[in-house]
Amino acid sequence: MEAKANGPNNQDSGRVIHGPTNPMVTPLLTDLYQFTMAYAYWKAGKHQERAVFDLYFRKNPFGGEYTVFAGLEECIRFIANFKFTEEEIKFIQQSLPISCEDGFFDYLRGIDCSNVEVYAIPEGSVVFPKIPLLRIEGPIAVVQLLETPFVNLINYASLVTTNAARHRFVAGKSKLLLEFGLRRAQGPDGGVSASKYCYVGGFDATSNVAAGRLFGIPLRGTHSHAFVSSYMSLDEIIDKSLRRNDGSSTCEDFVSLVQSWLSKIQSLRGIFGETNQSELAAFTSYALAFPDSFLALVDTYDVMRSGIPNFCAVALALSELGYKAIGIRLDSGDLAYLSCEVRKFFCSIEKEFGVPGFGKMSITASNDLNEETLDALNKQGHEVDAFGIGTYLVTCFAQAALGVVFKLVEINNQPRIKLSEDVSKVSIPCKKRCYRLYGKEGYPLVDIMTGENEPSPKVGERILCRHPFQESKRAYVVPQQVEELLRCYWNGSSDKKRETLPPLKDIRDRCIKQLEQMRPDHMRRLNPTPYKVSVSAKLYDFIHFLWLNEAPVGELQ
Amino acid sequence: MEAKANGPNNQDSGRVIHGPTNPMVTPLLTDLYQFTMAYAYWKAGKHQERAVFDLYFRKNPFGGEYTVFAGLEECIRFIANFKFTEEEIKFIQQSLPISCEDGFFDYLRGIDCSNVEVYAIPEGSVVFPKIPLLRIEGPIAVVQLLETPFVNLINYASLVTTNAARHRFVAGKSKLLLEFGLRRAQGPDGGVSASKYCYVGGFDATSNVAAGRLFGIPLRGTHSHAFVSSYMSLDEIIDKSLRRNDGSSTCEDFVSLVQSWLSKIQSLRGIFGETNQSELAAFTSYALAFPDSFLALVDTYDVMRSGIPNFCAVALALSELGYKAIGIRLDSGDLAYLSCEVRKFFCSIEKEFGVPGFGKMSITASNDLNEETLDALNKQGHEVDAFGIGTYLVTCFAQAALGVVFKLVEINNQPRIKLSEDVSKVSIPCKKRCYRLYGKEGYPLVDIMTGENEPSPKVGERILCRHPFQESKRAYVVPQQVEELLRCYWNGSSDKKRETLPPLKDIRDRCIKQLEQMRPDHMRRLNPTPYKVSVSAKLYDFIHFLWLNEAPVGELQ
Repeated sequence: MEAKANGPNNQDSGRVIHGPTNPMVTPLLTDLYQFTMAYAYWKAGKHQERAVFDLYFRKNPFGGEYTVFAGLEECIRFIANFKFTEEEIKFIQQSLPISCEDGFFDYLRGIDCSNVEVYAIPEGSVVFPKIPLLRIEGPIAVVQLLETPFVNLINYASLVTTNAARHRFVAGKSKLLLEFGLRRAQGPDGGVSASKYCYVGGFDATSNVAAGRLFGIPLRGTHSHAFVSSYMSLDEIIDKSLRRNDGSSTCEDFVSLVQSWLSKIQSLRGIFGETNQSELAAFTSYALAFPDSFLALVDTYDVMRSGIPNFCAVALALSELGYKAIGIRLDSGDLAYLSCEVRKFFCSIEKEFGVPGFGKMSITASNDLNEETLDALNKQGHEVDAFGIGTYLVTCFAQAALGVVFKLVEINNQPRIKLSEDVSKVSIPCKKRCYRLYGKEGYPLVDIMTGENEPSPKVGERILCRHPFQESKRAYVVPQQVEELLRCYWNGSSDKKRETLPPLKDIRDRCIKQLEQMRPDHMRRLNPTPYKVSVSAKLYDFIHFLWLNEAPVGELQ
Repeated sequence: MEAKANGPNNQDSGRVIHGPTNPMVTPLLTDLYQFTMAYAYWKAGKHQERAVFDLYFRKNPFGGEYTVFAGLEECIRFIANFKFTEEEIKFIQQSLPISCEDGFFDYLRGIDCSNVEVYAIPEGSVVFPKIPLLRIEGPIAVVQLLETPFVNLINYASLVTTNAARHRFVAGKSKLLLEFGLRRAQGPDGGVSASKYCYVGGFDATSNVAAGRLFGIPLRGTHSHAFVSSYMSLDEIIDKSLRRNDGSSTCEDFVSLVQSWLSKIQSLRGIFGETNQSELAAFTSYALAFPDSFLALVDTYDVMRSGIPNFCAVALALSELGYKAIGIRLDSGDLAYLSCEVRKFFCSIEKEFGVPGFGKMSITASNDLNEETLDALNKQGHEVDAFGIGTYLVTCFAQAALGVVFKLVEINNQPRIKLSEDVSKVSIPCKKRCYRLYGKEGYPLVDIMTGENEPSPKVGERILCRHPFQESKRAYVVPQQVEELLRCYWNGSSDKKRETLPPLKDIRDRCIKQLEQMRPDHMRRLNPTPYKVSVSAKLYDFIHFLWLNEAPVGELQ
């Protein structure tokens, strides 16, 4: 699963572009119109014209006021390996009209990304609408071919990372967050991407073994309802012996030990009626397999009448042999109420049987959790320590796409603007630089875009930040710190210095740090304050000059 | 991209399991708990127990009353290749507690699916809640390992196929439906799956070149707004010559020909003001590249004041040289109104300049379309011939997951039931057979599940169909045709006959045919009638016998 080293310049100064490569990601993973356009550019002799495109999004997702940028490394790996095979060229030729000239396919045979430059915001950064996440410069025909794969690689990665970050924000720092979404994602690769980017967004672990292997993400998982249902009775357990944790002796009949603890619990707690025996058998069997890490799913039959007494009996039997059970998982019912009841039960066991730490045993909750249910649980009060989240997280149910766009902003050094009757869809022209300005308290205050050759904002110097489209919205800012956002991640075959692609853990750390650095009112779930995105006075004037020149003059009829 | 032939029995009697294999789909693409359970089964000596699992869903998506089943072929390919590599075994070993015994990893080394049987409903069938889409039988530890990949492969495939079918239903048979979702899907493979299954669900073509190559799906695409913006003026066009379509002569200055047609249109139609010259240059250049298949995106500046007159000038110039333009695409604005205005304009051009067929030129619409907007367009009246649909289609925005489950229904010939306080979550026990019963008018009437050894329903013989859980809901049916739903698609190393995996085109044909065969009231968008799903009287009694035996007896306190 190592990246092929067939791209130009895919390693230099020890900065290898490594990691797993998805073989689905070939230069054919693009829209047909990128090839028809490439042909038209080529036919017009325009294909080598130098173009600058911005990749950005227009609106933060999930009703929030921030987004986390992810997917950059996959884009850079894509261009490092960008080269058509002969078979791919043949397929493109079959897909275009037969009138297309052979010279074009010779041209395609020769292209790679050695003439392309990519500037980007570091992956894992908190980002905002309109600010380019990537600025891609190169021959127009080549850069157009990158549009669809780049948008594809960044749209979902950024969306699901943001979704994970939002779940983390609601859950709070102290909770363990587990991603359980593989079965609900858009196919195998959707599942692998989901696990990867949920980890970046602040989740602690995943159930997805393939993602664990590919990215070194911690893995979690115990058993399902089917495991419980697969047992009938304690008679099924043949090998009943369990060595004490300290190795000093062996308990020959762990099943009887469990049963005796169950009787004690039942008489002490005044519980009438039998607990479910298949469940007890399943828990006992699971504990025999994993005495060191016993965690049981307790809601197959009835949490408080069966699952919890059964679990406690097994956990106490383990405790007697020197093992410490981990805890339980709840996958149905009223999680707030049940978690509190379970905690009370655990505490009373700790007290009644004198087992230190029993009350603090871990409670994991799953079952269609999302931001809203986490928020509701917080409001009701709960005793959950860990959340397993799947469907709503990985499908981004609340908003299934980010709406990343890729717009031409300059060609042959001529700035280009895309107008629209909808102002939010007007693009910001010119090859630009972007800065984040920080205030006295260390919070980011505003992002500002300038023309490429304007002087950069300076610490301690007043600068006018203008809303790109609304004349009256503007503010002077005296930055205490200035951060240039777009950095060089790819410069083709040039020798110029470029950024290293950091390991996933560093991207995750960056994300967590950046989120903590934001002013809290931008981050809150209810009516968050929009973070300001601006342009320099000079760029403002230029946008409006172009706009007037390009827009058709209306006629009232 | 051919499937590896390393699985047991992955071809026999000429039925090769072929087609592209996603290398992400390895046996590690599963939840960790499948391995912890496998270990616990193994440790208890229970791993070889023969278990039967049903894979099904509980509720039709998108507020509808039907679902299309898809993803089967990918599941069968998965089990045909199911085998751990040594590297994978090592990773599993690292991921489990060090106390796990070596014998288990030797066991994992040896397993494959030669002892597994899969019965399934044919892919592309219309299916309903609770009826097993797949019945998987085999050693419990092995079958559990299949749960996550099977659910992953079927959940999204069935959901997006159903979504595509619903879009087709609203759009009507006569419209061309184009899938444009690659950039909004969950990563590369999500995009490839989306294109594949939208085609199965009744779409005509995709923009996704990789999907076109992998599955032979027709491709469509022309140009984007960036192509239009990349031109400044007609001066940029250097080679202005275009040969007549019949080859009889060459027009040396196509640009002037276009300009002269534009003047004629403007004077005849009384249009004042200039059309946008970058747009005119882009259209002219595109026509020079694709004179046979000219289709232009007309909304970069102003559809009626610029895009349409520019398009018509180029189309008329092409027509003079014997070429027939295809039409236009609208990507913004009021699509109902604009399409009608455009059609009127085309018809007036046909009349005024005597160009037969000009009025019938194709109008494609795109821009955040979904079922609701298609329905609204129908109600308002429109002149759109083709719809390009992306985000809402491939993300299944309206409902991003199907909720496929995988439940143990039998182990060691003992039926198992999974109870829940929520009746809709109670599983239907036993290894079952499933039938679709058809009425006099040829419509399917009801699906019925029976125990495996019950006699099958017979044509012309009255049979009682019972709601699985509600005592009062039952009906006698005299079927005119009986179709057994579950067929054998995998029987490990056995020599018994099994179904062939049909090519994608046949799956698509089946889907379209099955949808047409349904009674219209099940299919309508508003308040559709639920299709009935039932069990035999004998299975009903057995479910309720088990239920009473398993459920804890409550206590009113």
